[in-house]
Amino acid sequence: MRGNITVALVATAFCLAQGPGDFKPATSNVLTAQYPRVDSNSRVEIRFKAPDAGKVRVNFWSGPKADMEKQADGFWTFTTPPMAPGLHYYTVIVDGAEVSDPGSTAYFGGSKWASAVEVPEAGATYYLPQNVPHGQVRELWYDSKVTGTWRHVLVYTPPAYDTRLKERYPALYLQHGGGEDESGWTRQGKANFILDNLIAAGKARPMIVVMANGYARRAGQSVPDPRGRPLGSPEMRKAMQDMMGAFEDDVIQALIPFIDSTFRTMPDREHRAMAGLSMGGMQTFHVAFNHLDRFSYIGGFSGAANVFATGDEKLDTKTAFNGAMSDPVAFSKRVHLLWIGVGTNEPERMKQGIEKLHSSLDEAKIQHVFSQSPGTDHEWQTWRRNLQDFAPRLFQPEAQRSAAARAK
Amino acid sequence: MRGNITVALVATAFCLAQGPGDFKPATSNVLTAQYPRVDSNSRVEIRFKAPDAGKVRVNFWSGPKADMEKQADGFWTFTTPPMAPGLHYYTVIVDGAEVSDPGSTAYFGGSKWASAVEVPEAGATYYLPQNVPHGQVRELWYDSKVTGTWRHVLVYTPPAYDTRLKERYPALYLQHGGGEDESGWTRQGKANFILDNLIAAGKARPMIVVMANGYARRAGQSVPDPRGRPLGSPEMRKAMQDMMGAFEDDVIQALIPFIDSTFRTMPDREHRAMAGLSMGGMQTFHVAFNHLDRFSYIGGFSGAANVFATGDEKLDTKTAFNGAMSDPVAFSKRVHLLWIGVGTNEPERMKQGIEKLHSSLDEAKIQHVFSQSPGTDHEWQTWRRNLQDFAPRLFQPEAQRSAAARAK
Repeated sequence: MRGNITVALVATAFCLAQGPGDFKPATSNVLTAQYPRVDSNSRVEIRFKAPDAGKVRVNFWSGPKADMEKQADGFWTFTTPPMAPGLHYYTVIVDGAEVSDPGSTAYFGGSKWASAVEVPEAGATYYLPQNVPHGQVRELWYDSKVTGTWRHVLVYTPPAYDTRLKERYPALYLQHGGGEDESGWTRQGKANFILDNLIAAGKARPMIVVMANGYARRAGQSVPDPRGRPLGSPEMRKAMQDMMGAFEDDVIQALIPFIDSTFRTMPDREHRAMAGLSMGGMQTFHVAFNHLDRFSYIGGFSGAANVFATGDEKLDTKTAFNGAMSDPVAFSKRVHLLWIGVGTNEPERMKQGIEKLHSSLDEAKIQHVFSQSPGTDHEWQTWRRNLQDFAPRLFQPEAQRSAAARAK
Repeated sequence: MRGNITVALVATAFCLAQGPGDFKPATSNVLTAQYPRVDSNSRVEIRFKAPDAGKVRVNFWSGPKADMEKQADGFWTFTTPPMAPGLHYYTVIVDGAEVSDPGSTAYFGGSKWASAVEVPEAGATYYLPQNVPHGQVRELWYDSKVTGTWRHVLVYTPPAYDTRLKERYPALYLQHGGGEDESGWTRQGKANFILDNLIAAGKARPMIVVMANGYARRAGQSVPDPRGRPLGSPEMRKAMQDMMGAFEDDVIQALIPFIDSTFRTMPDREHRAMAGLSMGGMQTFHVAFNHLDRFSYIGGFSGAANVFATGDEKLDTKTAFNGAMSDPVAFSKRVHLLWIGVGTNEPERMKQGIEKLHSSLDEAKIQHVFSQSPGTDHEWQTWRRNLQDFAPRLFQPEAQRSAAARAK
């Protein structure tokens, strides 16, 4: 026994001398994979087997891009400096092949199944599964006359939805970002656990959350092959506009009627919200502002800005969206919540876009919430925090919404 | 116009001369990825970018393992001979690094997120989404006192489950294979579409399908680190037995009560079935035979055999599972369906195991269905066909079960 204690103490001393003494497998790993691992300083250690490779690089999309070091056992390793909390997408580049790390769960991002590592946030449990009642996340398929296809949609139903059969629920339509898909908000964002925890604490009203696929093409419509065509080219701008219009029509003409006929919703604008991140924020502003008869709560997470103003132009609040905001008092009675947010470590052009939108709204005296996520980038921790702040403000009497706003 | 037709004709002629004239992107690809692609001869072309690699191999787990050919543009290509229909797992090995192909959807198999390519089966639409009512696939979390954790489970609810609120449904518990997880039966197996189509055609009774995670560990129990320990070692055999026991207890004590209290099931043995593939077949036989008070329909897809007999031993039907089969007449009254299946192209030891089980059952005059899937390997097309044959036989009056058996 004494010997064991000695060994343990020696081991501890050894680890302390090494520095990274407390690395643990990331919660985002597959099954029992030991790497990547994270220490209490939020450093991430990547380990990747490529015995015959000449060069292996790690590529954090919002983080280090660096050469990995070859070890004698055929594995390549790299340890990052301390990273911000949250889920960080990365890939590994093996002799020019950009691939995912088999140790990581695969998440759909960047238009492919990429790797990511979860760096815990000290003290933050709001997006983790807790010992509270859990809602369900349902996969459904709906027949869209707009796209001429069966479309896949995910729907969170709150705890007790299946037992309180007389109860009806408000609905939040929540959109993923570009290069992601409808699985992002639960698999990466943990939206279901965020809602479970808020509802259990009495902080958010039980609601349905509808997570649709943001890509849409009208039945019979062809799209230009994007290869070799820059995003700003006339063909690709037109393709983007076409997609936005097809998505708008799909939401209004196919998705909302499907949801309202399938779930016990409260099918009016007072009980319907829409929010989205990045591309999904743009889509939210486009759809919700053009259909204020359907939505009364609107959120743009790290997005939305360039729907209003491109380049250096400011938002013209008098004319934007057919003058929806031209009368600020009437607008704030009609739209119960206009919420915009951004991470303080996001790329400058993204931050500036949202800040410009914020100052334009301020100047025009248009009531809104502007939220900054400290220290986070254009990544999921920003959007988890956004949802955590946004959801409690939804579907509440005016007094509670204001109190929630003051409490920030 | 005439010029275009000429070009088209020239192009057609060119393609015919080349042979693979009708390659199309696989339905298993991500978004608009053009590769892998499949031609009408069921050949698969893989294309993988690795400009600086010295050697790239493609590794179909049940198919070709071959060097790919480097092209001038930095891509490596390989075209397979004609392949069996179905979903084929593969990885790519880049200078010794075994990785997935970014062009493919990621499927959880082989204990990691792997690639796979869907080769269509001519004329087979039973596992494709059709223009019929679709059920839902629900993610739920249940609190297991056995494992001391919240466990994730997927549940298919048939069309109209949410509208026919007075109706109760039988339940099939359907298990994935080793190295896969609870997402396998829907993402790879298309079990939801198979059920949708069978139900729409009136061929299967509307049922709930419960897809649980097959890995379980008792609360507080540690498992030996598998690294460096062969599967047959005493520690690993003990670990496997412990996992089997923990899974059994979790199904009986936690999962079934959770399902029966959450869904409108018919909570008796007459309306509960269990089936599984490979490892899941073993687990099915272990759980169902030990709990015939809970299950009356049992299916083993490419699995189950070695629960009875290891090595060259034959099944002792008199003593197996505490003599559950010792009286064949009583057994066939009690167990309405005992179904075993295997693909004719599976590895010899797997085929022989199931065939030996089949002949042992025959000799002992124990009523059962033995099904062979022509030309398919230890892969998902075998198990899709198995489910397509198995599900219509469930929860039917005796006369219909016999008719279904005769129709084979």
